Amino acid sequence: MNNMLLQDEFISDLQRGGLVLIQKRSAFKFGTDAVLLSDFAKDIRCRRILDLCTGSGIVPVLLYAKTAAQEIYGVEIQPDIADMAMRSAALNKIEDKVKIICADLRSLELPRHSFDLVTCNPPYMKAGKALLNERDTKSISRHEILCTLDDAVSAAALMLREKGHLVMVHRPSRLADVIYSMRQHGIEPKRLRIILPAPGKAPALFLIDGTLGGGAELKVLPPLILADENGLESDELKKIYGRDEYDI
Amino acid sequence: MNNMLLQDEFISDLQRGGLVLIQKRSAFKFGTDAVLLSDFAKDIRCRRILDLCTGSGIVPVLLYAKTAAQEIYGVEIQPDIADMAMRSAALNKIEDKVKIICADLRSLELPRHSFDLVTCNPPYMKAGKALLNERDTKSISRHEILCTLDDAVSAAALMLREKGHLVMVHRPSRLADVIYSMRQHGIEPKRLRIILPAPGKAPALFLIDGTLGGGAELKVLPPLILADENGLESDELKKIYGRDEYDI
Repeated sequence: MNNMLLQDEFISDLQRGGLVLIQKRSAFKFGTDAVLLSDFAKDIRCRRILDLCTGSGIVPVLLYAKTAAQEIYGVEIQPDIADMAMRSAALNKIEDKVKIICADLRSLELPRHSFDLVTCNPPYMKAGKALLNERDTKSISRHEILCTLDDAVSAAALMLREKGHLVMVHRPSRLADVIYSMRQHGIEPKRLRIILPAPGKAPALFLIDGTLGGGAELKVLPPLILADENGLESDELKKIYGRDEYDI
Repeated sequence: MNNMLLQDEFISDLQRGGLVLIQKRSAFKFGTDAVLLSDFAKDIRCRRILDLCTGSGIVPVLLYAKTAAQEIYGVEIQPDIADMAMRSAALNKIEDKVKIICADLRSLELPRHSFDLVTCNPPYMKAGKALLNERDTKSISRHEILCTLDDAVSAAALMLREKGHLVMVHRPSRLADVIYSMRQHGIEPKRLRIILPAPGKAPALFLIDGTLGGGAELKVLPPLILADENGLESDELKKIYGRDEYDI
């Protein structure tokens, strides 16, 4: 197994049906946001899924585990990261369903309007806010250097079938940007869930689900609370991680 | 005092510095939303305030009590309701500061870009969703018959000074509409607070504060929870109602 690893890489056990993921120590590592995103999207009926800004491929691998989708494409612009995601799919022996493409989402060569679901955990920060190393892989994953929010939403609108869903996770500071961009591209926000680190705290993230060509009416769900007053993982988060199925 | 009342009217004690409000039994009566709106707006520094869709004038009267504003205009399109609001201002002897105008907010004759704060508790429901009696005062207060959300936001953009604030309360189902309309009229959403009826419940309302010509960055505050698990008013709601100052 280890001869599939390059220097600086390590394997994480996803604790879900034996699935694993290769990650780079020096690159952006997946976090709770990717897990929450795949959970929020998992009940949307779909045969074909496209994950933009896929990075290590964590969202396609989790959606493989959680949905009955036939094809899950992951798009990553950085060649070394895309290559790593491809090797993760191979290591899991799921390359027939999880297909990683190294491409710029602004010029995707995939059949337009063919996807039921597009997911995206985009870079959270606007470029230009801090001094960045534009070639640094962590900076590319975190800042809008190679793709802006609007680029991602625009690509989703092009790839989704009518009434297909775009599901994103983002920071609360960008909520107005996300809603505005979605609607500008004809994707109507339909479900919103605010994520609180603990009861009484300001939100850390939000999940949003929009429908291409959907009618205007947003359902705001009860907030998802990650930890209780004592800092212990909430029952709902445990369930999302699948930790309720065995003792930890 | 009672010779100021018409048939079908009654007086409510606002339990705040002796202030009262005349209301009609057959018309829309003010609720928690108006109280939450005035509380959310009260710390914005302002000399001149404009309240759109003012109804009984509850928001101007509460803002008179809670702010140091010099002039608070309330605009109401229905002549009998506007007349009632004027009599409330007279009854409270605050007509020098609280000025009620009977007008259509789509053609306001007030000095443009002269207000520091515009507040609005608009009709929540889209017209055409139910069979309506278009001349019924409750329908006019609840449905977008005489003014749409976009009309209200457009009027606010015309009346606010640069960097002035628009503060609204609305239903969660309209959150995307409110954010989109604000930004289309150059009012950038800056503060958002979701209102939960109780912990773990879906939100019932939201409060939003936007700035004319503000930069794009939204602060999402911790949710405001109205009641605890046992259905008892939360401490924060008690404080907003000023009920923490005396026993009840």
